Amino acid sequence: MRIILDGMGGDNAPRETVKGAVWAAGEIKEHEIIIVGKEDEIKAELETCGFQGDNIKVVHAGDVITMEDSPVKAIRRKPDASMVVGLCMLRDGEGDLFLSGGNTGALVVGSRMILDRIDGIDRPVLASIYPCLGYEPSLLVDAGASAEAKAHHLLEYGLMGSIYIEKVWGRPNPSVGLVNLGAEESKGTSVTKDAHRRFKMAPVHFIGNVEARELPKGACDVIVCDGFVGNVILKLSEGLAMNILNVVKNKLMTNLKTKMAALMLKPQLEELKGDFDYEEYGGAPILGVNGPVIKFHGSSTASAVKNAIIKGIPYGSENVVDIIRTSMLDLEETIEKDEEEQDA
Amino acid sequence: MRIILDGMGGDNAPRETVKGAVWAAGEIKEHEIIIVGKEDEIKAELETCGFQGDNIKVVHAGDVITMEDSPVKAIRRKPDASMVVGLCMLRDGEGDLFLSGGNTGALVVGSRMILDRIDGIDRPVLASIYPCLGYEPSLLVDAGASAEAKAHHLLEYGLMGSIYIEKVWGRPNPSVGLVNLGAEESKGTSVTKDAHRRFKMAPVHFIGNVEARELPKGACDVIVCDGFVGNVILKLSEGLAMNILNVVKNKLMTNLKTKMAALMLKPQLEELKGDFDYEEYGGAPILGVNGPVIKFHGSSTASAVKNAIIKGIPYGSENVVDIIRTSMLDLEETIEKDEEEQDA
Repeated sequence: MRIILDGMGGDNAPRETVKGAVWAAGEIKEHEIIIVGKEDEIKAELETCGFQGDNIKVVHAGDVITMEDSPVKAIRRKPDASMVVGLCMLRDGEGDLFLSGGNTGALVVGSRMILDRIDGIDRPVLASIYPCLGYEPSLLVDAGASAEAKAHHLLEYGLMGSIYIEKVWGRPNPSVGLVNLGAEESKGTSVTKDAHRRFKMAPVHFIGNVEARELPKGACDVIVCDGFVGNVILKLSEGLAMNILNVVKNKLMTNLKTKMAALMLKPQLEELKGDFDYEEYGGAPILGVNGPVIKFHGSSTASAVKNAIIKGIPYGSENVVDIIRTSMLDLEETIEKDEEEQDA
Repeated sequence: MRIILDGMGGDNAPRETVKGAVWAAGEIKEHEIIIVGKEDEIKAELETCGFQGDNIKVVHAGDVITMEDSPVKAIRRKPDASMVVGLCMLRDGEGDLFLSGGNTGALVVGSRMILDRIDGIDRPVLASIYPCLGYEPSLLVDAGASAEAKAHHLLEYGLMGSIYIEKVWGRPNPSVGLVNLGAEESKGTSVTKDAHRRFKMAPVHFIGNVEARELPKGACDVIVCDGFVGNVILKLSEGLAMNILNVVKNKLMTNLKTKMAALMLKPQLEELKGDFDYEEYGGAPILGVNGPVIKFHGSSTASAVKNAIIKGIPYGSENVVDIIRTSMLDLEETIEKDEEEQDA
């Protein structure tokens, strides 16, 4: 497989991206990594890493999309940016998977514009890994790409998320839950009620509504919600976890006795820190475009970049895009039939 | 002041409600508490408590609205229920404040039906205390009463919340924040954008959009959002905090060494538990109806009931309802003028 990596995307690029690529290349010798970006800078980093293998290639792209760039404008006006070049290579079959840690908005917009939507998908979307302390992580869709969603968008999110988890994470028959005010079907907005009805016809393991309280306990494999609610879930979880851990940390620093206790708890505290480390789960997919694209965190270290590459491989090899296309067309037929029956 | 208490509302009623009333009565001798409910049961509890004072009165109500009752039906079909009798007494001037730990939906619906909306308020709402670890708590409006909201509803929520915090919590010039995807005015849905514009004209200390990440750090005194998002914020915070503390607790129980450390940390861990204790902040107000109504948690202990009564007194004495009415009418004029100017 040929993996295209945006060498310039992320806060610490190209240093950490190249280092991550080198580490990954050592582990996945049967695959090739194509780093796109400023050739001289990337080659210099490869040299610093002392890379001796033959499964990293560099493709020059002279421009960079920054975090401050406006997504649509950047994609249109920076054809030589590493992100744009990488997406075009994916479109043109010069690679099988594209990863970037760059401007999220630009990556979503660029994927839509350059790769186009999958037939039958109305709205491509960015998913996000939702870490559950003490449980396997969930996949949350939509992570914030579109504030509002119609029922058929939510259905798309759930279907695509389910296929992704099964094929890329290797979790069979993943459960799909719809974020709602309560477990009863009658709860929520007109949109969630309509989505609930559609989900019951979809070829996914739909477990119904899930309340936000259940999410941190791994309530379902795929968390479905609009981008506004998705943003609230992700950001609030992050903020609250940070706040609680800070308070705990301060309590451990109260006096000599608590400091001694903290010392005795060191292995457990380290473990706890590890549990919060999202990096090991890899990047987050853009779903619904004609090509596998993965976003990793802008602040990713080399180790996170490496994980994103290795864990992302099945997205490039498992025909996820084709399966989404077929499933969506089948589902549309089912729903049309149902609507005809309801009208009759 | 005469404080009307639904003696039968809550999981542990009338035992905990009566005990809470007795404790409160001892501290606020200048006020009278009227407990509404089954007279024999309440008098028996008063006797158990050994109450000797003269500032508790009992008013008989032979029926009870249960947690399973459907709100609208219950209010219509159970005219003798303690909640209905209490609300009617408040409406008829036989008391100055009403508190209940009963069925939340019934209390919201009953308040709307029996007390009616304040002139100028389109939608009464249930607020909730949002506890911030290490910071003063915020007031979140809407806590989940209505899944969807229009811009003018959000504006009402913010205005009413601001008046409540200033008058009842005694916090001057409270800050009002609109939950949104990002800090920029252009972010969010058409509803949040419209609400943002209106808030800038409102007589509140509007600090603009707040991201969910900032909420646990006490980002603003009044958190404004629709009931769907409010429910997600409240329930997710509860679930996540519980999950993190459970994981921490398990880590403390790993082996003898960690158990010893836990023992050394006992005072700090107790403190932490106290920080999570929402009961000390009192109950949550229903805002926008013609009378001060406070909801306390169904699982409230006597101590929580006592706190809800004592901390709720200013809601009965500070003319909050009148101030909301006047402020809302003034604001409507401002907005109408603005809209005329925009049309011109």
